[in-house]
Amino acid sequence: MTSDTLITKETITTFFKDLQDRICGALEEADGEGHAQTYRFREDTWERPGGGGGRSRTLSDANVIEKGGVGFSAVYGEATDATLRSLNLTEPAEFYATGVSIVLHPRSPMVPIIHMNVRYFEMSSGHCWFGGGIDLTPHYVLNEDARWFHQTLKTVCDRHDASYYPKFKTWADDYFYIPHRQETRGIGGIFFDYLKPADSSDKAELFAFVQDVGNAFAPIYTHFMHQNRNLQYGEPERTWQLLRRGRYVEFNLVWDRGTKFGLETNGRTESILMSMPPQANWIYDYHPEPGSREEETLRLLRKGVDWV
Amino acid sequence: MTSDTLITKETITTFFKDLQDRICGALEEADGEGHAQTYRFREDTWERPGGGGGRSRTLSDANVIEKGGVGFSAVYGEATDATLRSLNLTEPAEFYATGVSIVLHPRSPMVPIIHMNVRYFEMSSGHCWFGGGIDLTPHYVLNEDARWFHQTLKTVCDRHDASYYPKFKTWADDYFYIPHRQETRGIGGIFFDYLKPADSSDKAELFAFVQDVGNAFAPIYTHFMHQNRNLQYGEPERTWQLLRRGRYVEFNLVWDRGTKFGLETNGRTESILMSMPPQANWIYDYHPEPGSREEETLRLLRKGVDWV
Repeated sequence: MTSDTLITKETITTFFKDLQDRICGALEEADGEGHAQTYRFREDTWERPGGGGGRSRTLSDANVIEKGGVGFSAVYGEATDATLRSLNLTEPAEFYATGVSIVLHPRSPMVPIIHMNVRYFEMSSGHCWFGGGIDLTPHYVLNEDARWFHQTLKTVCDRHDASYYPKFKTWADDYFYIPHRQETRGIGGIFFDYLKPADSSDKAELFAFVQDVGNAFAPIYTHFMHQNRNLQYGEPERTWQLLRRGRYVEFNLVWDRGTKFGLETNGRTESILMSMPPQANWIYDYHPEPGSREEETLRLLRKGVDWV
Repeated sequence: MTSDTLITKETITTFFKDLQDRICGALEEADGEGHAQTYRFREDTWERPGGGGGRSRTLSDANVIEKGGVGFSAVYGEATDATLRSLNLTEPAEFYATGVSIVLHPRSPMVPIIHMNVRYFEMSSGHCWFGGGIDLTPHYVLNEDARWFHQTLKTVCDRHDASYYPKFKTWADDYFYIPHRQETRGIGGIFFDYLKPADSSDKAELFAFVQDVGNAFAPIYTHFMHQNRNLQYGEPERTWQLLRRGRYVEFNLVWDRGTKFGLETNGRTESILMSMPPQANWIYDYHPEPGSREEETLRLLRKGVDWV
């Protein structure tokens, strides 16, 4: 795509729809590889009463993925007062929002949980912006895996702007933080929001970046599916995984602004809560054994770790 | 206690401490009855950096109770700006807050989850009030049990003021509501807050009511422990229980004002999250079979049911 192409919301929406298709296809293939049974995503299409709708795709009890959701939506309608105020608009205006959201909970504690979101927001007033990111939540943080993950994201970012990775990596550290646990949710990744184009060429460039992020998802996660699916584990690792999923639930329900906004503004609950794990456990005041891999993981769940 | 007794915060604190002791004793006894092993609550005492502290008592993997917490706390310090504003105070002031909080998750899906809280708040400016309540979350709503539970609470209320039960029952319906599910958390019970005494005789009367509520807890819950502990159940009931616990988690982390306030103001996380179940599950877009007991339960999880 050349930089003087006019990027419309239709162009972006079409890309996101296709991205959902391609990601689901890649995940199904990777999940089925070497297994007797191939599992397919189930699709629910839904309409939003105020305008627009979506396609929620979910996979349950598959080979590698225990529970996962890949959602696409394109919704529009009257902008809320809060949105109007944030843009200093005094007249009513319409919004249009489209994006792809993913959370995958693997069966094995040796395979990380992953989250991705890419989104575009446009107002009838002419304001528009992109947002998104990819972040990884390994149940066991392995330095080599973390380095590879961050290096891959850095490479994607660097193709567009050398300032992106350091800025968006810090943003992810800050966003995916659980204050009441003084832990990060996982090893972060990149997070960005309100990327507002200055002109149409800038918009084409931002869109190209968001496309690159979206396209990076399947290769990144299928890499971990292939590499880690056959690692041995037992009850202690499964117990730890279920406790870490508890923290995932705590982050998403208490702190994640997207989840809170969705639930408070009457979004489609089942699509918003596709991010919930199949099972999560809580043990009162649990502390891993000193010197254990679990304790080492906790030690690494903090902001500002330079993985690259 | 006669109505002209001066009720001090020390009197109330002593009652709450003793209430915690008595409730833990009654629960241990009921849990152990007819079982080879007797389980005891584990106690953690903690101090609050700003002033005061508490005793968190927890029980895990016992006979009837799978995970439960009975917490006592008495904390004090400088009142927050929000508190000062809500009382129209322009000068700094000190607060004192004490209470007992309980959540019990039973092992059997046939035994209900229960929650109780009784609390007292006092300001150095002279303002003070009581709050609290008891509510029940059966995994399967049984009309007879629900009627007995509400009738017992109504009897406690009616001893003090005939307007209490209808008012506090409605308050519980409104408070324990999950907007994003359009369900109540359970069958409610009573909930009250900001009960401000007009004078010292009024304060003695309010305290007597709160004492009655606190004292009603153990007889109510041990009744259900005895009555329902041996009811048969299998995998389908356990599956349903784990999904209902998921809703419990959603309510507590997304909507419960006490939990949110505690987590956002740097309260003791492990004490606040004693309410979490040992295990909770999520299945995407789950709907119980038409005509099943699970569907019947869902039908009854709504506001305004007159159980008495």
